[in-house]
Amino acid sequence: MRAVVYRGREDLDITDVPEGPVGPGEVRLEVGFNGICGSDLHEYYAGPIFIPDGEKHPLTGRELPLTLGHEFSGTVAEVGAGVENAAVGDRVAVMPLYTCGVCPRCREGRYNVCAQIGFHGLMADGGMAERTVVPSHMLHALPDEVSLEMGALVEPMAVAYHAAKLGDVNPGSTALVFGAGPIGIGLWFALRGMGVENVQVVEPSATRRAAIERLGAATLDPTADDVPALVNDMTGGRGADACYDAAGVAPAVATALNALGAGRPMVSVAIYETPLETPLLNLVLGESRIQGSLCYTHEDYRAVIELMSRGHYDTTGWVEKIAMRDVVDEGFEALHAGRKMKVLVDPSIAIA
Amino acid sequence: MRAVVYRGREDLDITDVPEGPVGPGEVRLEVGFNGICGSDLHEYYAGPIFIPDGEKHPLTGRELPLTLGHEFSGTVAEVGAGVENAAVGDRVAVMPLYTCGVCPRCREGRYNVCAQIGFHGLMADGGMAERTVVPSHMLHALPDEVSLEMGALVEPMAVAYHAAKLGDVNPGSTALVFGAGPIGIGLWFALRGMGVENVQVVEPSATRRAAIERLGAATLDPTADDVPALVNDMTGGRGADACYDAAGVAPAVATALNALGAGRPMVSVAIYETPLETPLLNLVLGESRIQGSLCYTHEDYRAVIELMSRGHYDTTGWVEKIAMRDVVDEGFEALHAGRKMKVLVDPSIAIA
Repeated sequence: MRAVVYRGREDLDITDVPEGPVGPGEVRLEVGFNGICGSDLHEYYAGPIFIPDGEKHPLTGRELPLTLGHEFSGTVAEVGAGVENAAVGDRVAVMPLYTCGVCPRCREGRYNVCAQIGFHGLMADGGMAERTVVPSHMLHALPDEVSLEMGALVEPMAVAYHAAKLGDVNPGSTALVFGAGPIGIGLWFALRGMGVENVQVVEPSATRRAAIERLGAATLDPTADDVPALVNDMTGGRGADACYDAAGVAPAVATALNALGAGRPMVSVAIYETPLETPLLNLVLGESRIQGSLCYTHEDYRAVIELMSRGHYDTTGWVEKIAMRDVVDEGFEALHAGRKMKVLVDPSIAIA
Repeated sequence: MRAVVYRGREDLDITDVPEGPVGPGEVRLEVGFNGICGSDLHEYYAGPIFIPDGEKHPLTGRELPLTLGHEFSGTVAEVGAGVENAAVGDRVAVMPLYTCGVCPRCREGRYNVCAQIGFHGLMADGGMAERTVVPSHMLHALPDEVSLEMGALVEPMAVAYHAAKLGDVNPGSTALVFGAGPIGIGLWFALRGMGVENVQVVEPSATRRAAIERLGAATLDPTADDVPALVNDMTGGRGADACYDAAGVAPAVATALNALGAGRPMVSVAIYETPLETPLLNLVLGESRIQGSLCYTHEDYRAVIELMSRGHYDTTGWVEKIAMRDVVDEGFEALHAGRKMKVLVDPSIAIA
């Protein structure tokens, strides 16, 4: 079968690979769609970072070369021995986490930050392929109302949903989302899905502001608007009830901490490449906090799929589909250059 | 009466000043002792910062020149009309906060981060004087077991106690305190007072480590010890349940975030002069947080005085007393140069 194989930095091979067997507790999926994630871009341009190189991952026993792809949906094509939660023909989204179950974090139920965490598509052959084999505990059934295209977006939308919860918001809250990329869009959908009335998306790019405005979002331009002053006015001097950093840059963090209310969180859901100059004094003066957020739980997957089944998420204007053969030019390079926002690889076109 | 008057940067005047009247709701105190605080040093060497200059403080109506001193104890010498919680001769510690009562923070009960917060001794004539006049709501009675010398330490010890609580610790916790200055010492006393068994004080200065070790503390030397690895071993891989930054420098923050357990807080109780390079990725990967802490509440004052009445705090080796006339040489300059750790001004010697 065809697959997008990562061999090292800026070295992707769209090639035929042999298919492995389906072991006990596993299923083979016919991949529906697979999204390209920001961390895939990091691996391509600056990696290998998370992809094991020279040492096998302790949970999967694998290292590069590996088939990429951890944001995917599919249809069950083959079911291994002992699998009770899936049957051939089932349409599913995949929660691509391998966790050890024995580290202190797993034992506390914090498996999303497992000390040995692995991803299907970074530490095992993933979904940028015609088919992939996954443990059945990764499966989440998709209701009829949720398409396979939408199903491939459950993973990034669950990243955002998980972060949204850590902002400790309620319908009366005022929330600021910094960055209108895919996670920022996901935060906007998640917060609105939780009933939060006043969500302001702070984004310097006019193109990205226009895209999220078409989905219904209110936006602020940090290059023109005095964000802390506007939020102060909106909230009667209270400041934002939650800020979310999905931009990962120092100006966003500084503005967020200036706009944040006393005792409230700024949730960090960005992969910071280096330490940032952070005005910690703002945290002290308002007893506010910076709260990290990583991945998702099964509960987040269920919540996102439930919202999707009610038509809450909309892919208009920010999600595009490409063939596997175009994954470098129309995928990685287009995303890296900012020409596209979210790209789903459709393996069924790849074969043509 | 004699007072230490702040006129501007590196401009202190030990001089005679007139005494004001005691208004309704106020008391005049004969000052017992008054501590020199890190923020006094900031005002002296880099100020005016908090001290109003050119604009009167909205709650006190005062600007410089002002008598310094916000860490003090005293004996009630005169009682204004309507005061019911104090009588002449009462020995008291003072919680030196002016708060507006009407801002969103005050209305939420967060008066310690009041948007207009003022300090007696920074925005009104303070305790580095023979006498000072304070609103009676600032008074906390000292039990017989608590000396006036100890009473002058209630303020900084309450800063530390308040921060200690925000670490969300329990007796089984492992806590790391970064910095063994007065607030670090206060954190150690507070955490031990809360029953926390394993408190490790991380301090690069051998002199400061020796001082806090003599009080009974366990210490780590970040220039020699691999603090995250040692804490990992101590906690069975869990990491610290709480870290406290009372150092305010980038290496302390980086080490703290590396040693912190998943989902746990690093409490910031430092006045950061500039934004610090902060490895926010650590927060993301462990879903941990940085939590700011400012000042104290009346509850913290009561808790500290209660611990003091049981003999929990010990001033041996880190607290020294000086005369008012020596406040620059033996106070500000000795502290700034690191020759002393905590200095209490004794106005009764000043007159001699």
